[in-house]
Amino acid sequence: MTEPTPSVDPMSAASAETEAQRKGRLGARAGVKVTLSVDAMGGDRGPATVVAGIARSASKNPALHFILHGPAAELNKLVRKRRILRDRIEIRDVPGVVTMDEKPSQAMRRPDTSMRSAIDAVKNGEAQACVSCGNTGALMATSMIRLRKLDGINRPAIACLWPSRNAQGFNVMLDVGADIRADARDLLQYAMMGASYARNGLGLDLPRIGLLNVGTEEHKGRAELKDANELISNASGIGGYDFKGFVEGGDIPGDKVDVIVTDGFTGNIALKTGEGTAKLVGDFLKEAFKATPLSRVAALLALTSLKRLQKRIDPRRVNGGVFLGLKGTVVKSHGSADATGVSAAIKLAYELASTGFTERLAARVASADASAQNDPTS
Amino acid sequence: MTEPTPSVDPMSAASAETEAQRKGRLGARAGVKVTLSVDAMGGDRGPATVVAGIARSASKNPALHFILHGPAAELNKLVRKRRILRDRIEIRDVPGVVTMDEKPSQAMRRPDTSMRSAIDAVKNGEAQACVSCGNTGALMATSMIRLRKLDGINRPAIACLWPSRNAQGFNVMLDVGADIRADARDLLQYAMMGASYARNGLGLDLPRIGLLNVGTEEHKGRAELKDANELISNASGIGGYDFKGFVEGGDIPGDKVDVIVTDGFTGNIALKTGEGTAKLVGDFLKEAFKATPLSRVAALLALTSLKRLQKRIDPRRVNGGVFLGLKGTVVKSHGSADATGVSAAIKLAYELASTGFTERLAARVASADASAQNDPTS
Repeated sequence: MTEPTPSVDPMSAASAETEAQRKGRLGARAGVKVTLSVDAMGGDRGPATVVAGIARSASKNPALHFILHGPAAELNKLVRKRRILRDRIEIRDVPGVVTMDEKPSQAMRRPDTSMRSAIDAVKNGEAQACVSCGNTGALMATSMIRLRKLDGINRPAIACLWPSRNAQGFNVMLDVGADIRADARDLLQYAMMGASYARNGLGLDLPRIGLLNVGTEEHKGRAELKDANELISNASGIGGYDFKGFVEGGDIPGDKVDVIVTDGFTGNIALKTGEGTAKLVGDFLKEAFKATPLSRVAALLALTSLKRLQKRIDPRRVNGGVFLGLKGTVVKSHGSADATGVSAAIKLAYELASTGFTERLAARVASADASAQNDPTS
Repeated sequence: MTEPTPSVDPMSAASAETEAQRKGRLGARAGVKVTLSVDAMGGDRGPATVVAGIARSASKNPALHFILHGPAAELNKLVRKRRILRDRIEIRDVPGVVTMDEKPSQAMRRPDTSMRSAIDAVKNGEAQACVSCGNTGALMATSMIRLRKLDGINRPAIACLWPSRNAQGFNVMLDVGADIRADARDLLQYAMMGASYARNGLGLDLPRIGLLNVGTEEHKGRAELKDANELISNASGIGGYDFKGFVEGGDIPGDKVDVIVTDGFTGNIALKTGEGTAKLVGDFLKEAFKATPLSRVAALLALTSLKRLQKRIDPRRVNGGVFLGLKGTVVKSHGSADATGVSAAIKLAYELASTGFTERLAARVASADASAQNDPTS
């Protein structure tokens, strides 16, 4: 029954919360046990890394409890080594593992996988959110058939956090890969869901939304983007956001908007291009510092500065795509996540579970559907 | 009649050239005057920056001559200050300027613009290539109606160079914004044109081509991508490239392929996302080094290393999108290019003009159309 320490506070954005949100969040948290359902299998580094990430989160946040899914014999051995997890973890023995190259349509039909078992624990109300490092397509397909879509949602989306120049330190982008298609109405729903996520996850009162395009002029881009531009603009009152119109790729890490809306094909390409570019610059930086004996000395002296930079752009710190538009919260961790990455995904899942995000989003979508009222807290 | 100095050598990739290519290139260069047609207007920084960039290039490369288009009174003043340009530049008095927010369909109809005049000098055979910092859409539209498309090309494309882990230091990506649509056959033509550009611009014997998608598995992505995957694979002999199949956003700066093929919508978003991310990391790096007095000292000591990094990722060094698929070479410089950026675009235009790139590309497309022979020099 302990209040979480500041270190489990979400994304250093708490200061931007409204008083009402802060109270709601603390009310949800104080002493309230949160159980997360974790898929131990399917990540590139195996279950030992997942258990290490869980243990790290558990040591920081006493409110956290876990249900862990996978082959019990293997998991028991790993969990037994971590004293912090004693009495806070339950293991569900599931033999099947969804592989990274398995087709979603096949994977979602197999009843005995750790992935499906992890999702079902949320469906059955035993856990408040699910975390998996596994195959994204399979996780989305299985989540869709087990949890079902929220009423009024056509295509669920995956939202990611992106390091940015904004005060909150991150922007939200969606969809980054749930569905390669999106029509104008889908893009409107992404705007609504993205705004809700930014309010609850980043503590922004009135998130600024941008629609990704190849130019900011109104005549540019595909026909469905022009339609979406109008739909999103008209719904800003109901959606509780400030729509800024079209934005370009350069605005994704910028401070012009907080939420970037796009289809899952474009969003996925942009996400991976951004990650790849940041990694390239980081690697070039390392090489530059290794080039001569003098530069090696300079690197030693610059170590603190470089670590400060690394912390700001470290993709592991923002690990966790959130599936939006389902009756239940699912966080997708990078397949290659290490213990730090897994722990970041768990922190995000905890944050969303403890603020009752899914319920708030459902209420917002329902109210938008009814085109009725405007409740700024959802 | 001087041989260009090594400093005008293209992208430090000369070592990867074949002997035949090297001879061809030197033969084209030695003592041969190259005239470039330059649009002085339309860039964000005005004609003074364009003239400064021209002067910088002229001082490095004695083979370069220029035709400069814009209001003569203004341009004469700027040119008179640069002694290096004496007897090497002709000014064409044109009053009209295409603005950045002008619709391409309007701009291309105006007969009195510096942009159109610059393109016409290539059309009339007075210059071997055109360079402009102006409105991209207007430049492409005007180039299309004045120069016309190469026989056999449906949609021309804009190709850009991207800093990469490959030995040549750069990858080619196309289309980055000529047309927001591209069907499977267009993507095949992009592969052919990109391969030709990589051979002539980067000196690669057998460029490796990748088709941008949201995953590397064959079942992923949109229908037209699956069709293009097959078309590009089947034409690798005629196209003179090594097709590696689907690649992801993270491969754009990577060493898996040399040329990335995609539609102009996705390519433009990826390009701007990559530029924005690199800029964000650079700014964060500067802030990290300014954070404390000690970090400022470290920054001083690390200056050489940081400059080395900056040089590798400096977008000004790779300034210049090349329009492919037209009967004439047009290089689009960034609207915000400074003198260094303009000079880089001029170097690229010189390189392509002096190697007879457009003629080689035309020959390659023709031979592909005839599905006949495979000439590895085009």
